[in-house]
Amino acid sequence: MKTETIKKSVEWTPSGVVMIDQTLLPKEYKTVTIKTCEEMYNAIADMIVRGAPAIGISGAHGVTLAAKEISQITSDKTEFDKLLKAKAEYLKSSRPTAVNLAWAVDIQLKTALDSDTIENAVRNLTENGIKLENEDIEINKKIGDFGAEIVPQGGTILTHCNAGALATVGYGTALGVVRSAHSKDPSVKVFADETRPRGQGAKLTTWELMRDGIDVTLITDGMSGYFMKKGIIDVVITGADRIAANGDSANKIGTYNLAIAAKYHNVPFYIAAPVSTIDPSTPTGEDIPIEERSHDEVRIVNGDFICPENVKVINPGFDVTSHDLIAGIITEKGILRPPFDKSIAKLFNI
Amino acid sequence: MKTETIKKSVEWTPSGVVMIDQTLLPKEYKTVTIKTCEEMYNAIADMIVRGAPAIGISGAHGVTLAAKEISQITSDKTEFDKLLKAKAEYLKSSRPTAVNLAWAVDIQLKTALDSDTIENAVRNLTENGIKLENEDIEINKKIGDFGAEIVPQGGTILTHCNAGALATVGYGTALGVVRSAHSKDPSVKVFADETRPRGQGAKLTTWELMRDGIDVTLITDGMSGYFMKKGIIDVVITGADRIAANGDSANKIGTYNLAIAAKYHNVPFYIAAPVSTIDPSTPTGEDIPIEERSHDEVRIVNGDFICPENVKVINPGFDVTSHDLIAGIITEKGILRPPFDKSIAKLFNI
Repeated sequence: MKTETIKKSVEWTPSGVVMIDQTLLPKEYKTVTIKTCEEMYNAIADMIVRGAPAIGISGAHGVTLAAKEISQITSDKTEFDKLLKAKAEYLKSSRPTAVNLAWAVDIQLKTALDSDTIENAVRNLTENGIKLENEDIEINKKIGDFGAEIVPQGGTILTHCNAGALATVGYGTALGVVRSAHSKDPSVKVFADETRPRGQGAKLTTWELMRDGIDVTLITDGMSGYFMKKGIIDVVITGADRIAANGDSANKIGTYNLAIAAKYHNVPFYIAAPVSTIDPSTPTGEDIPIEERSHDEVRIVNGDFICPENVKVINPGFDVTSHDLIAGIITEKGILRPPFDKSIAKLFNI
Repeated sequence: MKTETIKKSVEWTPSGVVMIDQTLLPKEYKTVTIKTCEEMYNAIADMIVRGAPAIGISGAHGVTLAAKEISQITSDKTEFDKLLKAKAEYLKSSRPTAVNLAWAVDIQLKTALDSDTIENAVRNLTENGIKLENEDIEINKKIGDFGAEIVPQGGTILTHCNAGALATVGYGTALGVVRSAHSKDPSVKVFADETRPRGQGAKLTTWELMRDGIDVTLITDGMSGYFMKKGIIDVVITGADRIAANGDSANKIGTYNLAIAAKYHNVPFYIAAPVSTIDPSTPTGEDIPIEERSHDEVRIVNGDFICPENVKVINPGFDVTSHDLIAGIITEKGILRPPFDKSIAKLFNI
C-alpha cells in the first residue's frame, strides 16, 4: 500500500478529470484521467468512482467533457443544447439511485442552456464544475462539525459502506463526522461493516481511516447486533444516496438491517449527507428506484466464485431505511430532526 | 461440480471415519478418512466437518478412535479410563460453542467408563457411535416433519449458515424442514444468506439444495430486511449450536441480526435443532461461550485479502438470539413454544 496523501478523490484538471481508481484499493493507489463523457459514464457505472457526492461532481464534470466534445461537432447553439441534453440523460442513467448525480448534472445542464454561446457554455461549465467540486469539501467539513456534537466522548461509531473522503471530493460525510469528532477527541473509534457484496467498508473505509490514524475495526455485516448488544456501539452513522421528502433514506444495501438493529438496541442511527442528497420531489422511499446490479458481484470475490457458479442471485445495490428508524439527518445546514417531513419542508421553504 | 449423491456427511467405517471435506465445497466434492483422535480434533477445529450435530457425531467417533489408540498403549483399564478422559476433554476443546460435541463425547466417555474391559469399551464405543450416527438422520427427519407444518403453501424460507445434510449426518435440521416441506409442496423456495465470514450459506446451503432440485436464491447477509419489507420472506428457520434453558439460542454469527429483522417485520423466526442442542445446564445465552475465530477468516477470501492486510478485526463465530425473538424451537419431540423456560423444563422433566 502506498501512502500518498489523498487531496481530492475527483479533481478537474486541464488534461481531464483525475480520479482515484477505487476498484483497485486497498491493494493499489492509482489515479485515472477521464477525458470523455463516455469514459465518465463507464467510470461511474463501473464504480471506479462511487459515493453519492463523488459521482455528483463526476457527473458535473462529465457534462463539461460532453460540452467540449459537442463543441467540436457543431457551432449551432440550439443543436449543441439538444445534443448536451441527450448526454446529460446518458450520464444520469449510469447509476439511478443516488440523486446527487441527477442534481449536479441538471445544475450543469442549466448552466449550459443559460449560456449565450457554445464557447461561454464550455467556460461556464468548467468554472461551475470546479466551484461545485470545491464546495463539496466545504459542505462536508460543515457536516462534520455539526455531526461531531452527537458523538459521545471516547465513543465508538459504527458505519456501513464508505461515506468518506473517497465517496466525496474529500473529507467525507459520515466519515467527515468521524474526522471532526476525532480531531476534537482522538479516543473516538470506528467499527466498519464490511459491506458485501462490493466490500466498500472492508476496502475503502478501513483504508482511509487507517491512513488518518483513526482506530478502526473491520467486522462483517452480520455482526453489528452482536456488538450493539455488548454495549460497544454508541452511535451508527452512514451516508445516503437519496433522501425522500419524508426522511426515508436510500443507502447501500445492508443499511436497513443495521438501522433496525440499532433501533432494537436503542443505539441512535444518523444519516450524514449534503442537502443535495435530499430530494423533496421524491415523496417517500417507495418512490426511490433501486438499482439491480450484476449478480457476479455476489458470486465472485477476488476473481473466483464463492458459491456454485450457476446459483440464482438477487443483488439490489441499495435499500431504504424508513424515516422512523432515523434519529437525525446531519447536513451542512445543521441536524434535521423528526418529524422529517416538516424539517425537510422547512429547509427547502416548501 | 461432481454429482455423487451424499449418503452421510460423517460415517464410521472399518478403515476410519469418512467425511466430506466441507472446506473444498462447492468447487470439489471429496471425502477424507479420519484415522486418529488428533486428526479428528483438527478436522473439527479446521471445519472440514462443521454443524453442531455433525461435529457431535464426529466427536463421538473421535472418542472411539482415541480408545483404539490408547488400547495399544496400555492394558490397564484404570489407566485406559484416565487417558480416555483426557482425550475426551481434548476433543471437546476443538470447538467450544456447540453443545452437541460435549454431549456426544460425554455419552461416549460414559459408555467406555461403564465397560468392564478395554476390549469391551472399544466395541461398545464403536457400536454406540454407529447408533448415534444413524439416530441423527432419524431425528432430523422427525424435525423436518414437525417443522414442515409451519411452512406456508408456496412459501419462501430464509435461512442462515448451513443447517443441512452437511451440518448433520444427513437430511439436516433447518434444511430438514425445507426438505420435508418441499417433499409435500415443491413450490416451496429458499433464500440463503451468504453467511460471512466463512460463507457456509453461499458454499454449502446453495450447493446441497441445488443438488436436491430445491429453488434457492443466494443473498448477502445485509439483504434480509430488504426482502422481508417486500413481503417475500414467509418464515426464517436456522439451526442452533446451543440452546440455553430459557430458549436463548447460539447460532452462527449474523443469526441475531436476522432474528431482529424478522421480529421488526413480523416474520416468524424458528430454530430447528435436536434436543441434544438444548443444554438445560446453561441458564441463559449470557452463559454460552462464544468462540473467537481467526481474523484472517474475515480478511481473506479465495486466498487473497479483501481489506488492508493489517486491519484490526474481531471475529466472534457465533451470536445469541434472545428467546423473545424466537417463535418456536423445532425438535424431534415437536415444536417448543414460548415461554421456553417452561417448555424446555417440561421436555427435560425438570
